[in-house]
Amino acid sequence: MRTIGELGEQHLIERIGARISGPLTREVLLGIGDDAALLRPRSGEDLVISTDACVEGVHFRWQDQSPAAIGRRALLANLSDLAAMGARPVACTLALCAPPTLELRRFDGFVRGFAREAKEYGCPLVGGNLSRSGQTAATVTVLGAVRRGRALRRCAARDGDRIFVTGSLGGAALALARCHERGAPIRHLPVARIDAGLALARRRDVGACIDLSDGLASDLGQILRASGVGAEIDVSRVPRPRGFAAACERLGLDPDPLCLAGGEDYELLFSLRAPRVRSARPVGSAELGRRLGVVVTEIGRISRHPGLRGMPHIDAAKGWRHF
Amino acid sequence: MRTIGELGEQHLIERIGARISGPLTREVLLGIGDDAALLRPRSGEDLVISTDACVEGVHFRWQDQSPAAIGRRALLANLSDLAAMGARPVACTLALCAPPTLELRRFDGFVRGFAREAKEYGCPLVGGNLSRSGQTAATVTVLGAVRRGRALRRCAARDGDRIFVTGSLGGAALALARCHERGAPIRHLPVARIDAGLALARRRDVGACIDLSDGLASDLGQILRASGVGAEIDVSRVPRPRGFAAACERLGLDPDPLCLAGGEDYELLFSLRAPRVRSARPVGSAELGRRLGVVVTEIGRISRHPGLRGMPHIDAAKGWRHF
Repeated sequence: MRTIGELGEQHLIERIGARISGPLTREVLLGIGDDAALLRPRSGEDLVISTDACVEGVHFRWQDQSPAAIGRRALLANLSDLAAMGARPVACTLALCAPPTLELRRFDGFVRGFAREAKEYGCPLVGGNLSRSGQTAATVTVLGAVRRGRALRRCAARDGDRIFVTGSLGGAALALARCHERGAPIRHLPVARIDAGLALARRRDVGACIDLSDGLASDLGQILRASGVGAEIDVSRVPRPRGFAAACERLGLDPDPLCLAGGEDYELLFSLRAPRVRSARPVGSAELGRRLGVVVTEIGRISRHPGLRGMPHIDAAKGWRHF
Repeated sequence: MRTIGELGEQHLIERIGARISGPLTREVLLGIGDDAALLRPRSGEDLVISTDACVEGVHFRWQDQSPAAIGRRALLANLSDLAAMGARPVACTLALCAPPTLELRRFDGFVRGFAREAKEYGCPLVGGNLSRSGQTAATVTVLGAVRRGRALRRCAARDGDRIFVTGSLGGAALALARCHERGAPIRHLPVARIDAGLALARRRDVGACIDLSDGLASDLGQILRASGVGAEIDVSRVPRPRGFAAACERLGLDPDPLCLAGGEDYELLFSLRAPRVRSARPVGSAELGRRLGVVVTEIGRISRHPGLRGMPHIDAAKGWRHF
């Protein structure tokens, strides 16, 4: 089995560059190969920047899923942050630390998955770094752009806002549990809700927005803290993947913690102002979903009274906790 | 001895944020605390982005230098990339991977050093990530800005350009050798030549520019490859730190490899066009140095003939080689 240690650093960088870096554009003037990359921002836009790390043994294990899926996930978490800000992807950088003993097929698979994700979302790799290390860790930084002053924020939820979530929750946690209990490979791959985020940033009635990386309870808590409000959630309305209850039962798992505190679903959680005119009909979930290009479900309401009501107590340690 | 594992992730992030994040400005609209940071680029500028990782056991050892010095270096390498592009620092992100057993005093020292460097260079931390890991690794991404179309490049050296270097070379490699041979703590701390880079980007007679992170031989080689040219170097003119030869002799070390192939000096290497009018007097090193705010030395000339002449053969493995 060939390892990356058998190839030189320069060769590995070229291997990455050949797969991922896109063509130069009016926005990307210079990619991999100089001291730094060079971008030309479009006028009238703000820039969004976010960094996330994906560490072997913490965020992934090579034996749990394909190397390509791990590569996709490494970028996905960052793209999801852009979606939560209502931004379009512009470019990304990748700092990859790996042991020289890493098998070349895993390295190549990772790069292939990363490249596929980068291409799909129009987010070319413009720079990076390759370092020796005891365990594999990929740190990705994404740069996005959003119309001036239109970025979505966590702090903008107001009393009376309706709370919505895209897609369904718990699928990622269920796949992980299935892997840990049964050794089943993880095939579940979430998507970054970039288009929905862009559509939300164009609306005038959006309050706060966040992406669900740590779980509904934890991430809704972030919105409430940042906005200085509370919320009432109807847990029975929280959307779950098809066959979720039955799958949980087969594994002897309580579905609620997976759905309400499971991380990595990367759906968007946002609040919508009630119509200003009391008699106006509020937009329905079906219509809103059509406009955002994704299924959305109303799951509760923001309230001026602090605290999160209607949510069963979930052990916070079941979410991501690093230290 | 307290470790970072005893504190929660949120607490550690607040500890970093309290020290490093600068005040919000017209350029930094939003720092740490949301899904991503928000920046408003100034009009008429291009953006520069670079990523570098600093890994325990590869780029540093805790016992070799103070935690604060390690924190400074983690940002320094990135700032130096901005200097090489002629860019001013705008903001940075930090992804820190560390074992829960990392002593809190080391964590705090690292953060203090990083914060000092960030403040000194006007490069506020706007985002980041904290992850558990087997060994400490800090991945930094910096964002800089440069006047439209004025970024310095590696590929712009031309036949007849004179080659200059800022400061002196070999000091970083000597300090490292002294540490490895004698166990002496590393006190040598290079600086990023931001001001010199800015002054170079304003000149019309600059050819190529690169920062010396991997050593003169290797980095000059990058300029030659990117520009499709060769060079003639006068090794006797390559500037060395004061007392360099004597210090090398005491340690029984050959000074040439340290000076010509030692990495991490972070000086700028650049080429300057000869005056268009043949009779015009070319700018002297002293005058050029005054304009750039740093000592500069002319060390050779770019030539149309491929290859690097005048340089003794240096084992490339003495530079940084990761795989």
